[in-house]
Amino acid sequence: MMRGDVIQTNAEIFASASVVGGKESEGPLGNLFDLRDSCDRFGMKTWEKSESEMQRLALNTAMAKATVNANEIGTLFAGDLLNQCVSSAYGLQTFGIPYVGLYGACSTCAESLLLSSLMVSYGMCNIAAAVTSSHYCSAERQYRTPLEYGAQRAPTAQWTVTGAGAFLVRSADEEMPSDEGRAVVRRCVIGRVQDSGVRDAANMGAAMAPAALDTLCRFFEETQMRPDDYDLIVTGDLGFEGGDILTSLMRAEGYEIGGVYNDCGKMIYDRERQDVHGGGSGCGCSAVVLSADILPRVKRGELSRILFLATGAMMSPDSLKQGEEVLAVAHLLEIEHLP
Amino acid sequence: MMRGDVIQTNAEIFASASVVGGKESEGPLGNLFDLRDSCDRFGMKTWEKSESEMQRLALNTAMAKATVNANEIGTLFAGDLLNQCVSSAYGLQTFGIPYVGLYGACSTCAESLLLSSLMVSYGMCNIAAAVTSSHYCSAERQYRTPLEYGAQRAPTAQWTVTGAGAFLVRSADEEMPSDEGRAVVRRCVIGRVQDSGVRDAANMGAAMAPAALDTLCRFFEETQMRPDDYDLIVTGDLGFEGGDILTSLMRAEGYEIGGVYNDCGKMIYDRERQDVHGGGSGCGCSAVVLSADILPRVKRGELSRILFLATGAMMSPDSLKQGEEVLAVAHLLEIEHLP
Repeated sequence: MMRGDVIQTNAEIFASASVVGGKESEGPLGNLFDLRDSCDRFGMKTWEKSESEMQRLALNTAMAKATVNANEIGTLFAGDLLNQCVSSAYGLQTFGIPYVGLYGACSTCAESLLLSSLMVSYGMCNIAAAVTSSHYCSAERQYRTPLEYGAQRAPTAQWTVTGAGAFLVRSADEEMPSDEGRAVVRRCVIGRVQDSGVRDAANMGAAMAPAALDTLCRFFEETQMRPDDYDLIVTGDLGFEGGDILTSLMRAEGYEIGGVYNDCGKMIYDRERQDVHGGGSGCGCSAVVLSADILPRVKRGELSRILFLATGAMMSPDSLKQGEEVLAVAHLLEIEHLP
Repeated sequence: MMRGDVIQTNAEIFASASVVGGKESEGPLGNLFDLRDSCDRFGMKTWEKSESEMQRLALNTAMAKATVNANEIGTLFAGDLLNQCVSSAYGLQTFGIPYVGLYGACSTCAESLLLSSLMVSYGMCNIAAAVTSSHYCSAERQYRTPLEYGAQRAPTAQWTVTGAGAFLVRSADEEMPSDEGRAVVRRCVIGRVQDSGVRDAANMGAAMAPAALDTLCRFFEETQMRPDDYDLIVTGDLGFEGGDILTSLMRAEGYEIGGVYNDCGKMIYDRERQDVHGGGSGCGCSAVVLSADILPRVKRGELSRILFLATGAMMSPDSLKQGEEVLAVAHLLEIEHLP
């Protein structure tokens, strides 16, 4: 009895919302995000509480868009980058929704959407919600150095996105009235933890590319699909460095993805105009780009079938100090337009 | 469309293993654990690597008991208490099993078993695995003070268990040859994050009791079951303080659980002989007690039907410093003996 790597689903992402900070709202996708705060504080006194507030605002906005109440949501999957995932717990506590806390680093957006899709596709609940976030200021002081220190960043370093995304998912069997097209999760692959051999915490893209490679190849091998069956293969967040590495690694495996490939960390900032070095990253990066830019294009039919992979680096500052390599994981969702 | 809180499952926990340190092996359940290391190091040079090694050993032992290979396991749910859940990622990476990282603090054992039970009950994979751990020494230096500091502990403080538990779960529909009885997960409840109003990090039991109350009451209300329908209602890890509070809170709601109630944090250490104050705690506590003591009694039919709830405190040292209250969550599994 061997396992199949690809899990069938039939889940509609029927509402979503994005909340971002100042730098993100000045980027190329700036006017697509639902809520923006140029000072990144969202009315809170600490960066950690600001991040929690972004999660609360994101879920609240998604629920408002779809006129869904908290007691209609059966399960909430959430996670973030902070120690003990406190942005999620504190940000979402007041909703009173059954809560499954996740830790998948920057892969958590795909991880939470994947589990939400499973819950509704297999009839375990009617509506599931997925919420993830990251905040540049809370991440910098936890993972790197206090902002006040003004440390110089390596050319490959990625910029943690200040943002939160929330998604509401239900079975695609349900015929619900819809003015626009629908975005349906058809298949999923749960990632395997990969050891990249990279020890440089300022080069996460390189560390995570092998995880994206593993997940993509497992998907293509089992399904016999090819990269050109898709309008878009989008990772989050390999950035410029990791994205180039993934394209090369995939080519070596016989898959040419260059023509349809993009990365949420490349899409969210303007590389020339904004000083982001390797591109964006963080649980919030892929979440807000998916919600604000990619899903609307799928719903409108501009993208008829895509692969969305979020990659996460599963190390901690302490594990790196102890000489460990950066581990990574990548979860995949195949998302289709339905009229 | 209101949500139902109780999810039906039909999942057999068909193998498990427990790995513990010195203090746990000297406790009342000491000779029941599969692997023990009196120096808590498991051959590693850092406490964090020791904890990872315990996870690896636990899963390896459970797989060996059931003669299951890694490529037969479709999904691995894992988590721990360390920042960025590094014990799980590093400890389990070499198995190459599709990996879903969780963060539920000390509730992670129930969280991982619950998701494993859902995966196999609804046909998403044939075998799922759940692995969790905690380590006294890695937890003390991350959450409290370095061991060398020799800080005095409050009377209500709990002792983080050095231990890891692993569980293999498959659909209970499958008729597999078994010399002994079976332990089958029949129903589950996903916990809701509760705000206890407690700010004292040395009184986790009090902070987590309201979460156990909420989950238990939701289960009893929806199923119309009563406490005396069960041979055992066991929490992990409210300890002595939190256990007393839960019993009182339940009584106020009209449920008398005192006669069948116990707590993994009370069972694992000898209160008189071992200096543990409030009892044991940690992701590893409920995992090793469930694996080594409770499940074997269910399989033998000494316990015909039980409720297992693991409770987790969802704060971080930073969130407490910022004046936040301790949040908590409790996930529930109803486990039945089957001949």
